[in-house]
Amino acid sequence: MQPHELSVAEAARQIEQRTLSPVELVQSALDRIEQVEDRLNAFVVVTAEQALEAARRAEEEIAGGGYRGPLHGIPVGIKDLYDAVGLPTTSSSAVRSDHHPTEDSACVARLRDAGAVVVGKTHTHEFAYGVLTPTTRNPWDTGCVPGGSSGGSGAAVAAGECLLGMGTDTGGSIRIPASVCGTVGLKPTFGRVSRAGITSLCWSMDHAGPLTRTVRDAALALQAVAGFDARDPGSVQEPVPDYARDLDAGVRGLTLGVPTNYFFDDVDPEVEAAVREAIAVLEAQGARLREVEIPYAGQMMAVEFGIVIPEASAYHQEMLRESGERYTADVRVLLEAGETVLATQYIKALRVRTLVQQAFRHAFEGLDALVCPTLPTAAAEVGQEAFTFPGGARKSVIDAWVGHSAPGNVTGLPALSVPCGFTSAGLPVGLQVIGRPFDEAGVLRIGQAYESATDWTSRRPPL
Amino acid sequence: MQPHELSVAEAARQIEQRTLSPVELVQSALDRIEQVEDRLNAFVVVTAEQALEAARRAEEEIAGGGYRGPLHGIPVGIKDLYDAVGLPTTSSSAVRSDHHPTEDSACVARLRDAGAVVVGKTHTHEFAYGVLTPTTRNPWDTGCVPGGSSGGSGAAVAAGECLLGMGTDTGGSIRIPASVCGTVGLKPTFGRVSRAGITSLCWSMDHAGPLTRTVRDAALALQAVAGFDARDPGSVQEPVPDYARDLDAGVRGLTLGVPTNYFFDDVDPEVEAAVREAIAVLEAQGARLREVEIPYAGQMMAVEFGIVIPEASAYHQEMLRESGERYTADVRVLLEAGETVLATQYIKALRVRTLVQQAFRHAFEGLDALVCPTLPTAAAEVGQEAFTFPGGARKSVIDAWVGHSAPGNVTGLPALSVPCGFTSAGLPVGLQVIGRPFDEAGVLRIGQAYESATDWTSRRPPL
Repeated sequence: MQPHELSVAEAARQIEQRTLSPVELVQSALDRIEQVEDRLNAFVVVTAEQALEAARRAEEEIAGGGYRGPLHGIPVGIKDLYDAVGLPTTSSSAVRSDHHPTEDSACVARLRDAGAVVVGKTHTHEFAYGVLTPTTRNPWDTGCVPGGSSGGSGAAVAAGECLLGMGTDTGGSIRIPASVCGTVGLKPTFGRVSRAGITSLCWSMDHAGPLTRTVRDAALALQAVAGFDARDPGSVQEPVPDYARDLDAGVRGLTLGVPTNYFFDDVDPEVEAAVREAIAVLEAQGARLREVEIPYAGQMMAVEFGIVIPEASAYHQEMLRESGERYTADVRVLLEAGETVLATQYIKALRVRTLVQQAFRHAFEGLDALVCPTLPTAAAEVGQEAFTFPGGARKSVIDAWVGHSAPGNVTGLPALSVPCGFTSAGLPVGLQVIGRPFDEAGVLRIGQAYESATDWTSRRPPL
Repeated sequence: MQPHELSVAEAARQIEQRTLSPVELVQSALDRIEQVEDRLNAFVVVTAEQALEAARRAEEEIAGGGYRGPLHGIPVGIKDLYDAVGLPTTSSSAVRSDHHPTEDSACVARLRDAGAVVVGKTHTHEFAYGVLTPTTRNPWDTGCVPGGSSGGSGAAVAAGECLLGMGTDTGGSIRIPASVCGTVGLKPTFGRVSRAGITSLCWSMDHAGPLTRTVRDAALALQAVAGFDARDPGSVQEPVPDYARDLDAGVRGLTLGVPTNYFFDDVDPEVEAAVREAIAVLEAQGARLREVEIPYAGQMMAVEFGIVIPEASAYHQEMLRESGERYTADVRVLLEAGETVLATQYIKALRVRTLVQQAFRHAFEGLDALVCPTLPTAAAEVGQEAFTFPGGARKSVIDAWVGHSAPGNVTGLPALSVPCGFTSAGLPVGLQVIGRPFDEAGVLRIGQAYESATDWTSRRPPL
């Protein structure tokens, strides 16, 4: 096994024991990038020299007894919405090709403090405003999209170009690429991880979080980036627990809600079969299942888009005036549409969001988490515009995917995607675990119980 | 001294010692209403029979050893935005003349649980959308307005028609009538007091709180109504301290910020003199003073109105369609204006509000509170449209008054108004104390120190 194929946890164990050097690990990731990047194009920029320099510093520190912890020397890819000093934050957009930050984003600063080595900036759907990441391809089938908007991090982690990728999630942008690229993806609770220094799509629903190859790695990454930050107005002063502590505690005695509506309404049969089988695995491990009706199912997408569209337009207004022609057409159309939304319409969407949050609080009474498909389908082909579901419903790719993600954004609840099988075409399927507020430990524990009982996360794409 | 002239604290002491009966006290308030109401019109409805019935029940309970605490048997007036079962919540509007609630608002329920006796519903500027309360007159000069929107509670408390009045404050609506009627008024921190069951003006800046004749009474009232309530999405889970504990601790060792701008920019000289004298009284009692620059002074009103106007229009949209002709003209114009606001404009106001909040956090470093005028003027005359200030600036009544109140609403910080003198025309002037988040105890302590050193709150209007 090449070093780049290791999980963060295993690489960290070897680095701590000095049987693996950070330089060797980072070089392995860079070699892997060299090997596959022409087919994937996951990275906006690869920072090979700086990464090797950082790896050498990590090696020296560790040799000198200064081991910082499980991210020390680990190669990470940073979605190009995050500010990282020395590199422009392009948001994969021509509009921002020379947007040079003077400070690291909070997450990048915390990752660097933890000793992580940035190997490059990964592609996003332009300004995180889409689910396709058209620059990039899916490692399981390069004729397919990697999902988005954090498609670069999804593809890079799945392909072994880095061991950890950072993403953002406003309507599924961590969970969508995680699901279709076959990685783990964690959208933490709103307020759990600082967004300071991350280009905003929709400040009231943007979340930052990791994409990794295992659930344990997601816990390690979250440990590094979680915590209050006064610079992010959405940040919440809530203690950060030890996410490793109960990770292996299993699901015996937990009660998992299985939605009777919404998440299973329009789903590809192969996806549904894989997810129902995953839920059966959790039950076999001692979890109690209970049927749950998802509240406000009919309003979910109206709230999601009713908030994202005007907030995105408010953020981009001046840039759209100055550089409108430099946006891609699909993003420009959305930004222009958002300029026509009335404040009263937006405020009503905010009010319904509050009702949805209150209704979810009730729906969660007695439950530890909801389990459901991350997405109703596997990856779309490049150029594919829509899916047709068994009942005859036809939905655009963005509607189908954001629909399954939106409850996590509208409610702010933590949501994890864990690989749970493959379609007959060999494309990954994701199980979504949605937890109680600030109970990332709980969703990780459930994900870990499932992962331990199966071997999906050990599969590698055929590159 | 008639019972209705007593403070809540003194009446409570006598009720607890059974030297005053709740029936006697409530009858005294009802007699006072009978005596002055034709000149003030503070009440939408006076509930004499139910109040006497409740007073008799209180008397029995207390005789039976069931004394509930300092609000037991105390006559209160409830702003007619608060739901109280058995009475329509008219919001002083023809639109809502038959809006019958099925449940008490959270505050009314808590007041009733504490044993308070509702003597009636007090007038508001229609739907709380104005600062004049044109139905009602000022007890110090019935040619003047009582302020608003909680003008009925201000007039009623000042005149002795009740010992405690409940108000709401979105742009000064507790502090404005408190200042111009010569009562104490407390706008608590956003999230401190539940707004469940209160007709909304602007849900992200509405606050509920008391108007009383003394600072101690405000502490007693807050104690009864403060606390988390899941039904109010703005409610915050923050422990409720004992507001009486440090009330008499004085100001020695506290640092008070005295604004160098904004609050003293356009102020009536008599008001400024009274407030500066009040600040000197606090300094003489041991407070340290420090000059402070108010941040975002130029944006404050744009944020206040940029948020209130569209939120109010969102709330009223259906009613405006159905019953537009039943609104008063001034409110209808504002509601119609709010329908034209774009979401992007409103969202920018929200974003600037966040910047203001962050800037105030910095401005408060090392400070216990800000002290400044509650308003730049005393009461306006009925029909008066504007004030002209010494520098030549001319401002409408609403702009002048909301300007001094808005920082408390935009930031959500607790703000108290305490009587601090009279103009040569015999009209009351208010000192405003703005505190740190959830430090109502601190602002009350400062208000109490000032009140104890002066005798303004013992003055009664010449009715």
